Amino acid sequence: MEIEIATIGGYEEVGRQMTAVRAGNDIVIFDMGLNLSKVLIHDNIRTEGMHSLDLIDMGAIPDDRIMSDLEGDVKAIVPTHGHLDHIGAISKLAHRYDAPVVASPFTIELVKGELADEQKFDSGNDLVKMDAGETMSIGDSGKVELEFVNVTHSIIDAINPVLHTPEGAVVYGLDKRMDHTPVIGDPIDMKRFREIGREGEGVLCYIEDCTNANKKGRTQSENVAREHLRDVLYSMEDYDGGIVATTFSSHIARVKSLVEFAKDIGRQPVLLGRSMEQYSGTAERMGFAEFPDDLGMFGHRNSVDRTFERIMNEGKEDYLPVVTGHQGEPRAMLTRMGRGETPYELDDGDKVVFSAGIIPEPTNEGQRYQAEKLLGMQGARIYSDIHVSGHLRQEGHYEMLDALQPKHVIPAHQNMKGFSGYVDLASNQGYKLGRDLHVTCNGNLIQIV
Amino acid sequence: MEIEIATIGGYEEVGRQMTAVRAGNDIVIFDMGLNLSKVLIHDNIRTEGMHSLDLIDMGAIPDDRIMSDLEGDVKAIVPTHGHLDHIGAISKLAHRYDAPVVASPFTIELVKGELADEQKFDSGNDLVKMDAGETMSIGDSGKVELEFVNVTHSIIDAINPVLHTPEGAVVYGLDKRMDHTPVIGDPIDMKRFREIGREGEGVLCYIEDCTNANKKGRTQSENVAREHLRDVLYSMEDYDGGIVATTFSSHIARVKSLVEFAKDIGRQPVLLGRSMEQYSGTAERMGFAEFPDDLGMFGHRNSVDRTFERIMNEGKEDYLPVVTGHQGEPRAMLTRMGRGETPYELDDGDKVVFSAGIIPEPTNEGQRYQAEKLLGMQGARIYSDIHVSGHLRQEGHYEMLDALQPKHVIPAHQNMKGFSGYVDLASNQGYKLGRDLHVTCNGNLIQIV
Amino acid sequence: MEIEIATIGGYEEVGRQMTAVRAGNDIVIFDMGLNLSKVLIHDNIRTEGMHSLDLIDMGAIPDDRIMSDLEGDVKAIVPTHGHLDHIGAISKLAHRYDAPVVASPFTIELVKGELADEQKFDSGNDLVKMDAGETMSIGDSGKVELEFVNVTHSIIDAINPVLHTPEGAVVYGLDKRMDHTPVIGDPIDMKRFREIGREGEGVLCYIEDCTNANKKGRTQSENVAREHLRDVLYSMEDYDGGIVATTFSSHIARVKSLVEFAKDIGRQPVLLGRSMEQYSGTAERMGFAEFPDDLGMFGHRNSVDRTFERIMNEGKEDYLPVVTGHQGEPRAMLTRMGRGETPYELDDGDKVVFSAGIIPEPTNEGQRYQAEKLLGMQGARIYSDIHVSGHLRQEGHYEMLDALQPKHVIPAHQNMKGFSGYVDLASNQGYKLGRDLHVTCNGNLIQIV
Amino acid sequence: MEIEIATIGGYEEVGRQMTAVRAGNDIVIFDMGLNLSKVLIHDNIRTEGMHSLDLIDMGAIPDDRIMSDLEGDVKAIVPTHGHLDHIGAISKLAHRYDAPVVASPFTIELVKGELADEQKFDSGNDLVKMDAGETMSIGDSGKVELEFVNVTHSIIDAINPVLHTPEGAVVYGLDKRMDHTPVIGDPIDMKRFREIGREGEGVLCYIEDCTNANKKGRTQSENVAREHLRDVLYSMEDYDGGIVATTFSSHIARVKSLVEFAKDIGRQPVLLGRSMEQYSGTAERMGFAEFPDDLGMFGHRNSVDRTFERIMNEGKEDYLPVVTGHQGEPRAMLTRMGRGETPYELDDGDKVVFSAGIIPEPTNEGQRYQAEKLLGMQGARIYSDIHVSGHLRQEGHYEMLDALQPKHVIPAHQNMKGFSGYVDLASNQGYKLGRDLHVTCNGNLIQIV
Repeated sequence: MEIEIATIGGYEEVGRQMTAVRAGNDIVIFDMGLNLSKVLIHDNIRTEGMHSLDLIDMGAIPDDRIMSDLEGDVKAIVPTHGHLDHIGAISKLAHRYDAPVVASPFTIELVKGELADEQKFDSGNDLVKMDAGETMSIGDSGKVELEFVNVTHSIIDAINPVLHTPEGAVVYGLDKRMDHTPVIGDPIDMKRFREIGREGEGVLCYIEDCTNANKKGRTQSENVAREHLRDVLYSMEDYDGGIVATTFSSHIARVKSLVEFAKDIGRQPVLLGRSMEQYSGTAERMGFAEFPDDLGMFGHRNSVDRTFERIMNEGKEDYLPVVTGHQGEPRAMLTRMGRGETPYELDDGDKVVFSAGIIPEPTNEGQRYQAEKLLGMQGARIYSDIHVSGHLRQEGHYEMLDALQPKHVIPAHQNMKGFSGYVDLASNQGYKLGRDLHVTCNGNLIQIV
Repeated sequence: MEIEIATIGGYEEVGRQMTAVRAGNDIVIFDMGLNLSKVLIHDNIRTEGMHSLDLIDMGAIPDDRIMSDLEGDVKAIVPTHGHLDHIGAISKLAHRYDAPVVASPFTIELVKGELADEQKFDSGNDLVKMDAGETMSIGDSGKVELEFVNVTHSIIDAINPVLHTPEGAVVYGLDKRMDHTPVIGDPIDMKRFREIGREGEGVLCYIEDCTNANKKGRTQSENVAREHLRDVLYSMEDYDGGIVATTFSSHIARVKSLVEFAKDIGRQPVLLGRSMEQYSGTAERMGFAEFPDDLGMFGHRNSVDRTFERIMNEGKEDYLPVVTGHQGEPRAMLTRMGRGETPYELDDGDKVVFSAGIIPEPTNEGQRYQAEKLLGMQGARIYSDIHVSGHLRQEGHYEMLDALQPKHVIPAHQNMKGFSGYVDLASNQGYKLGRDLHVTCNGNLIQIV
Repeated sequence: MEIEIATIGGYEEVGRQMTAVRAGNDIVIFDMGLNLSKVLIHDNIRTEGMHSLDLIDMGAIPDDRIMSDLEGDVKAIVPTHGHLDHIGAISKLAHRYDAPVVASPFTIELVKGELADEQKFDSGNDLVKMDAGETMSIGDSGKVELEFVNVTHSIIDAINPVLHTPEGAVVYGLDKRMDHTPVIGDPIDMKRFREIGREGEGVLCYIEDCTNANKKGRTQSENVAREHLRDVLYSMEDYDGGIVATTFSSHIARVKSLVEFAKDIGRQPVLLGRSMEQYSGTAERMGFAEFPDDLGMFGHRNSVDRTFERIMNEGKEDYLPVVTGHQGEPRAMLTRMGRGETPYELDDGDKVVFSAGIIPEPTNEGQRYQAEKLLGMQGARIYSDIHVSGHLRQEGHYEMLDALQPKHVIPAHQNMKGFSGYVDLASNQGYKLGRDLHVTCNGNLIQIV
Repeated sequence: MEIEIATIGGYEEVGRQMTAVRAGNDIVIFDMGLNLSKVLIHDNIRTEGMHSLDLIDMGAIPDDRIMSDLEGDVKAIVPTHGHLDHIGAISKLAHRYDAPVVASPFTIELVKGELADEQKFDSGNDLVKMDAGETMSIGDSGKVELEFVNVTHSIIDAINPVLHTPEGAVVYGLDKRMDHTPVIGDPIDMKRFREIGREGEGVLCYIEDCTNANKKGRTQSENVAREHLRDVLYSMEDYDGGIVATTFSSHIARVKSLVEFAKDIGRQPVLLGRSMEQYSGTAERMGFAEFPDDLGMFGHRNSVDRTFERIMNEGKEDYLPVVTGHQGEPRAMLTRMGRGETPYELDDGDKVVFSAGIIPEPTNEGQRYQAEKLLGMQGARIYSDIHVSGHLRQEGHYEMLDALQPKHVIPAHQNMKGFSGYVDLASNQGYKLGRDLHVTCNGNLIQIV
């Protein structure tokens, strides 16, 4: 059976992920993501009403025109998890394919939200939930099967899809960290990866998340971030003024830790901002996270402002608002707090906790610097970088190669510079560029079998 | 009562700490340290037989000649903890003063070791043990008292000495991290610091450890490093080859975690190297740390080599040697392993765990780079920076100022560049250079009252 | 005679310089500057109509309230050169003092411009021109004299004022580079500095420009930047598309080199932007720089746009526009070119030459990054950092100490971190903190005699 | 005619360059270099007596065993210039091929030196001199021709070889900077490159020097370094103590500038060290550089020491020794001066000029740091980084693509991370990975036609 891989998006950047695997006549698409930075560099662009081709020209969504070179039928569109760089283009591209979107339950909920916001296109694709550990037959040959393996990432319910073919398994490895104590959900299923590496024809091809491929060592467990965060918040136990925290709103495990530790130090946590409300609300409704009954979540500007007013009236020392703005985005809530534009007033000595890293780009660094300056001008004390990455570092890559022993590897989720650490590592393990180590770019077809 | 402070050493560098406080006619000296880097830049120098004046000229030990300008008698020499930059000059300078060395029990043991190695001078000074929480009268006035407050650092049994005078307390704040979960020993005694800040005349002067004064946020607890280390070692549980770890040999809490986690993953830990044996052996004998009965500690070259041979014979997969060499020192054990000069042979995939940061200096960075290169050439996988600093960052400084509310502050344990972050912070809190914020250098006298 | 120095502004930042020297009853103020970054961090603030006290509270202009502690009369306000951080607060503060503004001719012209823009205050101060090499008597004692020594900086007609007193000279050393081949104007007058160091009582006090005090080596001459720029522009001689350059509009020597090299490679230079027109026009009218007769300078938006249209019609290959926007300021002309908002259209391969460094602050770095991204999206090729600093590095400081041999030194024009390199250097030369090396902050008085 | 390219060495590192091009049955080898850092990481290895296979295993010289997969006969071995990473393996590998070494005259002289030092192998290869601008027929087909195009690099007499085939030209682009004012020798022959790009079949393949491919902008001309150096040395004209300079001994243009400016400021230059004597002596004998008649060059330790003694006797202020040690090599002359191990004694204020950058690797950075520390301890003032790179940056790459318009490009002289900037640039220009942009590694064959 012919196996071909189309590397459509996310092979020259972090963002707009999209890869298609053809096994005989059956095609499965992994991820359809959005590169948000390509949108934000323009002033005042709203993507909801934009046409796909314009977004492709901007480099914001994958250029899927190469799909016409793949002979076969798309049988499934499989986003691996609910981050925008993996699901953000579904509303713009999925309607072109007569295939269901198959994903884990939490991811499906987030895809639904994306489709609801879309104003230009109507997607009629079925939305099919499949859990980690489950499999699904692909096409009519009876020989191709899709399996979800549980992985750990900075969002819950992330999986790595595996396409089992007669020539071996194609493992799509985006995005993950190798976490044995992930705070929420099950540890990464390394046992299953090792089995896949050894059963049947083994692994034909492994597509790897190279986000951190230039970083040495091992990515820390979410549990380490949790202990770090606990240490920080507990150290503030005696403080009788305001404490504000921010983190990725999609990072349910982190939000849960914040909520828990707020309670531990005698404060009422409250989640503020539209995305905070959406992600955490969804996670709670679906049973992924249990939050205290009295946890407030407020998304609309009016209810947020009312909440701030109530906090100011009842006493800042009793609350811990968790807000948006961890990248210093100029219009985010935390930056507005720095500008004194919200009812919540910062006083000298108040604490601001950034449970997030800076996404490494000078624009973000500049904005975050400004946000911290503004907060500092209000008297706030800054606690930053209480965070661990959601992506494997080099020793994780090493362990994955050891577990899967793939015949071919394809670095993904970076540009060439980002791939370079992975190329060095894979070369040391005996892979060779141009033979079984495929450094590629957006819009290429790789014939594996 | 006149209060005068002599800033003798460690005010232009990290290293060779020494400060004297005169209260009336009674003088107490805090720390007498060695700046090792000033020794190592010369080839083949051994300090044991060297004269004080030569070491002073090299900048290796404090230039205590300014002591003759202080009118009064030295009543005690008080090292705060057992690191060389705080006790390393006692063997060279203490004999000039007719005063006992007063320190915590573990520190006294390490001072004894220093004095035993000394070849040039004979120190007749009494060695007096005093525990954190205890006090001692200084001089005959009945008005001056020395108190030890328990603090947390990267070595056990560290204290901050407080000299109570009729004019208020002089708090000598070197070296510490604000750790509420220090793995070994009690948390930092913030309650006592807050009391001292409020009782009697309050705090007249605070001398602060500025090692990390240019770093934002809060230094993590040893417990976070422990969870990080646990995560790393547990992730290796299934590996059936060699695992080697290195850390600061004086860092008993870290050594203990290494020993514990080695057991947890089914390996026999063994401590190798002269300093490993000394520090851990002393800590165990004194009851600071409980180690497993079968834990081997070997210091002499012959017994180390025999241990390596036994490990190679019985199977690397059953052992976890903890060795010296975390800075890539050219002659340390780990570097020699990289050069293939020990009986322990590294194989492809073997793990080397650096539970230590690189002390930031280009020389160290170059050596560590070389050591990692050599280890990598043997096939080793490197896990580095599993560590937290032993020194306060800015938010710790902020909290100390808040707790002590000192009338005067003196930044120490850095050079001018290192002080700069502290000066900014203290200025923001209302202190003013030249009035109550004293940026000074080695060899100055500051008249406080 | 009592000599006292008030360090009013620019001792905790680069910006809002102001220092007063009292010699007996006569006071001279050196510089009254604006810290622009403290203005820009707020959205939409215009300083022209603001009150001094509000600007002081923002940290934008010097807090001169300490002047009331100086007993004596202000006899002159002496800005050293025309940069905003040295003259930008004159319009807000000078009217409080009954004293003339004394400066070099070009500086006086720029001060006039500042006063003309001011909307809140009316300054009645006389504006007195004095050339480098000239002197003026200060006060009625007959014993105090003001001298201007020619120095070299990134703006023309910069001087270092020297206040000769019976106790020795007070040399105010802001801002300069030690340039023997400055392209426009005379080399730095090191001969005179050496004389001042040796004549009469020598130098009592030297206030040094520490902007680059943490940088090793020697600041390059403007002539090196010129050769670098020549090399870059000549390498484009055969290019037949658009070339655009940007630099500091106040940097007349650089503008002149750009104009000259544009001609050399067969292009018509044209200066665009309000500040470009102002600085270069003034310099030309005053005879500091000779520009070609046909050099266009356009400041108003309309005439700029018309010029761009003419260039597009006649052919980009015949022109070299020199525009504003070297820091990537969001609303500057070059950034707008990147956004496609001007009539000048960039094509693939067009060259953009940044003859300026990035002023080191994350905000600038983020903006510049964005500007370059936008220009790159239009196809532009970027040539950056064709520049040398206008400030001494360490070897310049070393030479100044050697020339002047001052009894006292005061580092200025930086914060504590910036001073640190100078403190190290001066300490190595025998100065001592707290004795003759005065590390100070805004709002201090230093009694020298 | 089949055209095949073997990328043998220098495609995973900077060092051990070797590339073979097969045109039909005729093979030409470009470069045979040594990776010195792979030798130096081992203690006390001398390569002169070592076998090729051991050096291959160490990664020190190219693994040329892939040559057996190329069907055809080697007709020429063509080093592009005389740096060790291009000629350093000739003595170890050339004897395996029955072909002459063809190179520019200066390069041939340096190859002779290499062969003379070799102790293990006897190379019987003819040494053939060919000048830039000349051509030579390759093989008997009458269809393949070798041309040398003059380029500019940090060593004189550098060329880029071009293999003209019926399928188009193969241009081997290592190593060069695009220099129109190279101080010694002719400017880069861009006119000829542009012709080659347009004549006949154009350029089939271009192999590019990617050393600086991650650096923006344009590499400065040697003339800019010269003006920088002039500025530094002229600024020392009045100094009456010792001045010492160091640079790459193979960098004749720089040495010549040093010699010239030494004379200009009234000092007698003298070249000290074995390699200084060799390179400059050879360049002078061959007429590449004219040095003053009285310029001393001394290589042997004894004559160097005698020269230092004479300088100390006659007065340091009259001399300017140019010595080895620009990377802080522990045993180099300058480092020994820092340790006080030479008869030349440094005094406070003496100047040390590093007209060289630090080759970016932590080992070098550590050694250079130590060397500067040691020199500083003797009182020396350090002037560093008076240098420009010998390698193209991105705008040079852009111009080369524009001039040659090659059908295929192969990045070389770096590792994957180093290639990444070039891949981005070439992709922007329309090349595509896997189609006409060949990112490869050591030991690959690329079939172009």
